[in-house]
Amino acid sequence: MSGDPENPEHPERAAVAALADDFLSDLREWLAIPSIGVDPAHRGDVRESAQWLADALRRDGWPEVQVWDAGPALPAVYACWPAEDPEAPTVLVYGHHDVQPVDPVERWRHPPFEPTLVGEELFGRGASDDKGQVAMHLLGVKAHLAARAAANPAVTIKLFVEGEEESGSPHLVPLLDDHRADLACDLVVFTDTPLYARDAPTICTGQRGVYGAEVVFTGGTSDVHSGRAGGGVPNPATAIARLVAALHDDRGRVRLRDFYTDVVEPSAAERADYAALPFDEDVWLANSGGAQAVSGEEGWSTLARVWVRPTAEVNGIHGGYTGPGLKTIVPADASVKLSFRLVPNQRPEQVAEALREFVAAHTPPGLHAEVIPLGDGAPPYAADVAHPAVGALKDAVEAAFDQPVRFSRTGGSGPAAILHDRLGVPVVYLGATLPDDHIHAPNERVVVPLLLRGAEAAARLWRLLPERLS
Amino acid sequence: MSGDPENPEHPERAAVAALADDFLSDLREWLAIPSIGVDPAHRGDVRESAQWLADALRRDGWPEVQVWDAGPALPAVYACWPAEDPEAPTVLVYGHHDVQPVDPVERWRHPPFEPTLVGEELFGRGASDDKGQVAMHLLGVKAHLAARAAANPAVTIKLFVEGEEESGSPHLVPLLDDHRADLACDLVVFTDTPLYARDAPTICTGQRGVYGAEVVFTGGTSDVHSGRAGGGVPNPATAIARLVAALHDDRGRVRLRDFYTDVVEPSAAERADYAALPFDEDVWLANSGGAQAVSGEEGWSTLARVWVRPTAEVNGIHGGYTGPGLKTIVPADASVKLSFRLVPNQRPEQVAEALREFVAAHTPPGLHAEVIPLGDGAPPYAADVAHPAVGALKDAVEAAFDQPVRFSRTGGSGPAAILHDRLGVPVVYLGATLPDDHIHAPNERVVVPLLLRGAEAAARLWRLLPERLS
Repeated sequence: MSGDPENPEHPERAAVAALADDFLSDLREWLAIPSIGVDPAHRGDVRESAQWLADALRRDGWPEVQVWDAGPALPAVYACWPAEDPEAPTVLVYGHHDVQPVDPVERWRHPPFEPTLVGEELFGRGASDDKGQVAMHLLGVKAHLAARAAANPAVTIKLFVEGEEESGSPHLVPLLDDHRADLACDLVVFTDTPLYARDAPTICTGQRGVYGAEVVFTGGTSDVHSGRAGGGVPNPATAIARLVAALHDDRGRVRLRDFYTDVVEPSAAERADYAALPFDEDVWLANSGGAQAVSGEEGWSTLARVWVRPTAEVNGIHGGYTGPGLKTIVPADASVKLSFRLVPNQRPEQVAEALREFVAAHTPPGLHAEVIPLGDGAPPYAADVAHPAVGALKDAVEAAFDQPVRFSRTGGSGPAAILHDRLGVPVVYLGATLPDDHIHAPNERVVVPLLLRGAEAAARLWRLLPERLS
Repeated sequence: MSGDPENPEHPERAAVAALADDFLSDLREWLAIPSIGVDPAHRGDVRESAQWLADALRRDGWPEVQVWDAGPALPAVYACWPAEDPEAPTVLVYGHHDVQPVDPVERWRHPPFEPTLVGEELFGRGASDDKGQVAMHLLGVKAHLAARAAANPAVTIKLFVEGEEESGSPHLVPLLDDHRADLACDLVVFTDTPLYARDAPTICTGQRGVYGAEVVFTGGTSDVHSGRAGGGVPNPATAIARLVAALHDDRGRVRLRDFYTDVVEPSAAERADYAALPFDEDVWLANSGGAQAVSGEEGWSTLARVWVRPTAEVNGIHGGYTGPGLKTIVPADASVKLSFRLVPNQRPEQVAEALREFVAAHTPPGLHAEVIPLGDGAPPYAADVAHPAVGALKDAVEAAFDQPVRFSRTGGSGPAAILHDRLGVPVVYLGATLPDDHIHAPNERVVVPLLLRGAEAAARLWRLLPERLS
C-alpha cells in the first residue's frame, strides 16, 4: 500500500496530498476553455473542453476513453476503468463540462476564463459548477489507485460527463439509450451538488424537480386607450395578476389540482438532520438575494421550504407599457413565466396538465389564454437513505472530513431522476462545493481544500463499496 | 344679413359652405407642421405651428393675437375678438395645437404630415386631435361674422390654444395664472372631445379625471436562483400580482379607501340619454382594442362604465426575466404602472393618498415598497346640464346637425376641470370629431363634413349666447 507512510490510516489522504499540485494546474487549464454550452458561438469551445477531458483521462491511464460527439447533443465524454475483480460492482460518476454564460462580465473581479487562485479559493467560470467536481473525481480515482497500489480500482468506475446540463440536458435520454451497454452500472454517483456549509459538510440526498411554462392572456389586437375603453374591457395584465394571486392559498400552498397528492415527505432521520444543521437566517437571506424576511409555506422551516417542499414561483411577468412615465393604455396582452419546483413523487406532466386546467378556470370572458411549456421539465429525485451505498458514502465522507456529517438536500434541479429512470439503478450524491460558490453568477469560485477532501471521500468510497454492495 | 339667399333660415350654414374650401386648404397647411410636443426634437415645429395659427388669425382679422412663448411652457396662442356690445358675454374657446407622436409610422397609409383627403375624410396627425377642431372654431367665427354681416361678434370671443395638452398640460396652471386678465371670461367652450357617433351626434357633458402611479416592490439586491431560494423568500412579482388582484372586489369595484365616497352619479336625464344611444357591442369592442367580451363594474352598462364610473387599470406590469425560454429566478423587484380614471367629485390627491395606504397594507414582510406618482393627475369634470349655456349649445348643435342630439361623455381626461377651477366659470364641450378617428394611433383622420357642421354649430352658439346668458 502506497501513500504517506506517516498517515497509515489515511492512505487516500496522503495520496491526494501528493497529487494536489498537478490536480490544480490541470483544473486551471480546463477552466480556461470557455465551454458555454447555451451559446452557439461557443460550440467549438465545448468540443475543445470535451477533448481536453478525454486527453486528461488518457494521461491518467484510463483504459477506455470516448468522446461522444454524434447526434444533436453537445459532446459528452465517457470513460471506463474496469475493476481488478470482474465480479466487483460498477459505479457511474455523472458530471458535466459545459458552463454557464458569464454576463454581466464587468462584475467579475478576475476574467472568468483566466482561473485565479486567491488563498484557498480558485475563481473562474466552472470552478464549482461542474468542472471542479469532475476534476475532483479524476483525482479521487488516481488517489484510490495510489492508495491501494494497484493498476485497477476496487470497483469498475465509469465516467459520464455531459455537455448540455446547463441547457437542461435536452438530449440526455437518447444519449443514455444510445449508450445503454456502455453506461450499465449498479450505482450512479452524481457530482453536481454542494455541501451544506464549509463547517457543516453534508451528504445530499435529493434535488427538486422543475416544470416551467409561460401563460399569455390576449385581449385584442392592439393596446387601447384606457380613457376610451378603461373600465369596459377585460385587462389582460389585471387578469394575469389575478391568475398569479390565485396560485397560492392563504397558507402559501399551491392551488393546482392534486399538487400535493404524490408528495413524499423526507424520513424522520433526514428531517432531524435538517433541524440540527446550523442556520443563520440573516446570513441565509443575504446569500439568497437579500430580501429582508423569509417567506413561504406555513408550518415548514426555511430549509424544508427550499429542499423538500414544492413551490410555484413567478420568474418573470410582463404586460403593457413599462417605459418612463405614464401611458394610459389597456394592454393588448400580458404574460407570466411560472416555474414549479417539484419533490418526490410529483411528475412534471401532471403539473403541466393541472396548470392548463387552472389557467382555463382563471381565464376571464373576453380574453384568450395560451399556456406555452418551457421545456419538458425535470423530475425530482431523492435517494433512499437506507441504501447501503448511502451508508458507505457517509462513512467515506465522515472519514475524509474528519467529522460526523448530516443529510441535506438541494432545492435546485438536475438529471438525477433521468439517470435513475433510464439506467434503473440508485443515484447517490457526492459533491464538495458550497452553496455560496456563486455558480451561475459573477465570481464563481471553488474552495480547493474542499475538493481535496471530496477526492479523498471518493477514493475511500471506491474502497468501501465492494463489501457494502455485496 | 348675408349668407346663402336660398337658405334664409340657415345663414350660418350658407356662410360655412362658402368658406369651406379655404378652410380645408388652411387646415392642410397647418397639419403639415409636425408639432409633436412630447418630442424635444420637434420643439421648433411646435413653435412654427403656433406661429402659423397666429398668422392665420391675423389674416382672418382677429384684432388681438399673441403667441405666448415665455417661460417653460411650449408656445400657446391667444386671440381676442371683442363683441360689438361691450356688455355682451365673453367666451373662451380652448383647444391645443400640439399633436401625438406618429409611431409606428409604417402603419400609416399616408405620411402623417402629408394631409391627404380621401372622400370626406382628411387623414393626418392632428386632423382630429386637435388642430381640426381648433380650425373648426376659426371657421365658426368667420361664419358667425358673415352670417350677421358685422365686423364684430355677438359675444366677445377669446381663443386659447395651448401647446402641451398631449404632455399632460404640465404648465397650464401657471400659464392661466400669468394671463388671468387676458383669459377672463364667462364661459369656456372646450373643443377636444368627440361626438358619440356620426349618426348620433351628442353634446359631451364631461370627462373623467386620471391619476397614475407606479408601485415598485423590491426584495433584495439581486435576482436569486429559484432552486436555491424559491419557496423560502418573498417573490416581488407574486406580491405585485397580489396587490393588483386585491385592487378590485368580486363586483369589479375598486377597493381603495373612500374611493366611491365623493362619486356623483349623472343626472337622470343624462342616464336616460346614454341608455337611448345606439350601441352595438361588437362594433364597440372592435373599436376598443378587439377583446372578445365587455367587462367591468357590476350593474352598469358599458357606456356608463367608461364614461361615468371610476376605474383602476394596469397600464404596465414588469418583473424578472421576460426573454426567451425559462430562467428560474426569484426576481429582485417587480413593478406595476396603475392609472385610475376619476369621476366627479373624486380628487387625484385623495386617490394618491388612498393608494399609498393600500400599498402599505399589501406589502408583504421582507419586501420594500415604493409608490412613485406619475404626474399630478387631472381632476374629472362634468358640466351642469341645467346651465343655460348647455341649453344654447344643444339648440345650436341640433340646428346644425338637423336632428335632436343627446348627452354623452368621454372616458378620457383633459384640462377642463383646471380651466373651470382657475378661471372660475362653467365649461361646456363643443366638438365634432368621432371616437373612431384613430387619435393617438396610426391613420388619424377627421370627417370633414362633421367639422363643417361643428363650425355651423359654433357660429349659431355665438348668436344665441347673448340672450341665453343674460
